[in-house]
Parts: sequence; structure tokens; C-alpha cells
Amino acid sequence: MKISILTICPEQFHDFRNTPLISRGIASGLLELEIVDIRDFADGCFRKVDDSPYGGGAGMILRCQPVLDALASVRREDSHVILLTPAGQPFHQKTAHRLAQQTHLIFLCGHFEGMDARICAFADEQISIGDYILTGGELPAMVITDSVMRLVKGSMKEESIREESFEQGILEYPQYTRPVEYQGMKVPEILLSGDHAAIREWRRQQALRITKEIRPDLL
Amino acid sequence: MKISILTICPEQFHDFRNTPLISRGIASGLLELEIVDIRDFADGCFRKVDDSPYGGGAGMILRCQPVLDALASVRREDSHVILLTPAGQPFHQKTAHRLAQQTHLIFLCGHFEGMDARICAFADEQISIGDYILTGGELPAMVITDSVMRLVKGSMKEESIREESFEQGILEYPQYTRPVEYQGMKVPEILLSGDHAAIREWRRQQALRITKEIRPDLL
Repeated sequence: MKISILTICPEQFHDFRNTPLISRGIASGLLELEIVDIRDFADGCFRKVDDSPYGGGAGMILRCQPVLDALASVRREDSHVILLTPAGQPFHQKTAHRLAQQTHLIFLCGHFEGMDARICAFADEQISIGDYILTGGELPAMVITDSVMRLVKGSMKEESIREESFEQGILEYPQYTRPVEYQGMKVPEILLSGDHAAIREWRRQQALRITKEIRPDLL
Repeated sequence: MKISILTICPEQFHDFRNTPLISRGIASGLLELEIVDIRDFADGCFRKVDDSPYGGGAGMILRCQPVLDALASVRREDSHVILLTPAGQPFHQKTAHRLAQQTHLIFLCGHFEGMDARICAFADEQISIGDYILTGGELPAMVITDSVMRLVKGSMKEESIREESFEQGILEYPQYTRPVEYQGMKVPEILLSGDHAAIREWRRQQALRITKEIRPDLL
């Protein structure tokens, strides 16, 4: 899979490229990650990427020209273009599965202060990672790339994915590791029993209990 | 405000520290950002931070000892401890406003593969940034820090914040900047009229229309 990220802050992606999942994906050839600096495409002497809004108001609005020229430079026939904006459809694990089937994802990172609305027409979809405001689309691009890459075949052990929260539509059961007792807190005895059927059933019950308690909306 | 982030991947936070909002916050004394490496607290010769789960299953589980010792090393009387997990309460702009009132936030970044459930008892709350699975809590810690810092008094112009999506409970109206026409697409004429009352009303109508179309659940 190829992922192209169009941003006015390309320097924010160095560490991300080196995270274990992403660097392993690149090394194994599963992922090609391209970071495109929108500023490189801005015309005029001042290479301005933003300007004040028509009709007045605070903040600067990302201009059509540099964004759309940057987009045109990387877009292919098989590209799927995602505009990251708080006004998009909420991102969900199901969205991640759908995007993992694509061959080329392009992420347009807006200033969250604003992007010229005419840019929207050039995106295949608009996505929000949650109901909150961030400085820009850079962290959302990383969040979606991370969640999608985990699902690309060959990236992760499949059994790790199957048991996780949201994969079964509910939250995950509680996990424990050594020691059996820590500061007076004990691991539930059933997990030490070796009775695999009973453990499976206990985990299912716990996952349901936790979901009911914390996220009844998922049931 | 002080923010302490406990992680097994401290190297992921260099770029984040240099983002405009965060570096400006640090330079102006509004923010103290502390990154704590959980591995520095792991006991034993091998400094292992994780181990396999009781009861079997894929993946490695973050151990109590290094996490809780790291936490004890930074916790103060005024600390508010947040465990980042997909099984937490969904993060929302309202949560960001609430957290912006705190004096010391501590983020515990889990492996999303698992963290010993006994650690939960040491957190004041558990938060999820959305219904999807990531490699770990590092990106969520950055997302929440970014959204909270925007709301800390002195970080941003207040009028920028007031108009944004979710601040009024709905999505933001569309924004436009120069030129008036780009590739045949024009800016709505009302925005060029100079009639501020009419522009305000148009924007309100557009915000409602967009919310109804994209996120009827918000209305």
C-alpha cells in the first residue's frame, strides 16, 4: 500500500516514520509512505499557503491553489483521497478495515482553523477521528495510518487483531500478566486454572460486563 | 500546566514537542511537558516491561511493576491520571475543556495489545479517542495534549476557539479565501457583500445544514 500525506508541517512525520509498525511496514515493502509539503506548491513570491477568510472572522484559511496542485502531483487512477476535518464522518474500526483494502491512500491535512471549502469537492471522503478540535490534520493522518497499517495483511499476527476491542463489536476482556499478586491485588483464579473452555467463557462474560458498564451504546 | 506522558516509546515525542502549539506553550511557560520512559523503571536484569497473558492468548501485556513505579515517581497531590485505552470513555471537546482546568495531567500510554488490568485502579479516569485500535497510547496522548493545550488560557486567540466545530454543539460553516473564482468554482456571493448581519445568519444556516447532512446525531 502507498500512503501519501499532504501537509504544511512535514517535519511532524519523522518520528512517526520510525515507529515500529510503520518502519517495519516500509522495510518489508508493505508500505510506501510519502510526505508531501504543500508549501512546495504555493505560487507567488511569498509562497503563502493561507489567507484571511471572506466575510471576516478569526484565523487563516488554507488556499485552494497550493493544496490542489499538491494533490494533482500525487494523485493516480487508484488513489483514494481523504480530507481530514472535524466536519467529516467519524472514523471507526470498520472504516480502517475498508481503507486497508485500498492501494493508494492520500490524506489531506487541513489547518483545523479552516480550509477553503472548494477543496472538499476533490476528496473521495471526509473523515474525522473524533468530536474534538486539533491544530491540524497531521495527528489524525498518523492515527488513521497506524490503525489501517495494523490491518494490512502481513503487518500483524491475525490472532492479535481478532480479540481486540471493537473487532467483536464490544470492548476487550481484562488481561493480566505476572506476578499473580501485586501490592495485594490478585489475578482472577480462573486464569490460572488451565481450563481453556472456562477461561474463554469467563473472558466473554467480562467483555460483556465491561462494555455494559463503560459503553452501553455499543451493545 | 504540567503534562507528564508515561510511555515505552519516548522517542515518538520529539517532533510533537516541536509542533508550533506545543513549543510555543513551552517557550511561554504555559506548559511543562515531561516524557517518562517506563523502561527506566523496570526491575530485573532484563528490564522487561511486558510478559505473556495469564490464561493464554496472543500479544504481550504491560506489567504492573514498571508502570506503577513510573507513575509513583511523577505523581503529585494535584495530579490527574489518565489511562489511554480503547476501553475508556470517548474523548470529546467537553472533556478537553474539563482537562484544561487541571494543573498536572499524567497520561499512561498502554500497549493496545494489553496492559495488566490491575493498573486501572491507579488512574483517575480511562479515556479513548475513538472506536478504533492503534498500536499504543502514544498518538492518543498527543491528540489529547494538542486539543487541551489549545484551550489553556493564553495559548490561542479566544475568538478562534468560539466558532469551531463542537464548540456550539454543531459543525462549522464553510470557509473561503482568495481568489473569488478558482477553476470555475466561486465563493458564495453573500460573503463578498460586506453585510455582516446577513453573513452571520448565512453561516448559522450553513452550519446547521452541514450538521444535518453529515452528523444528524449532533442535533
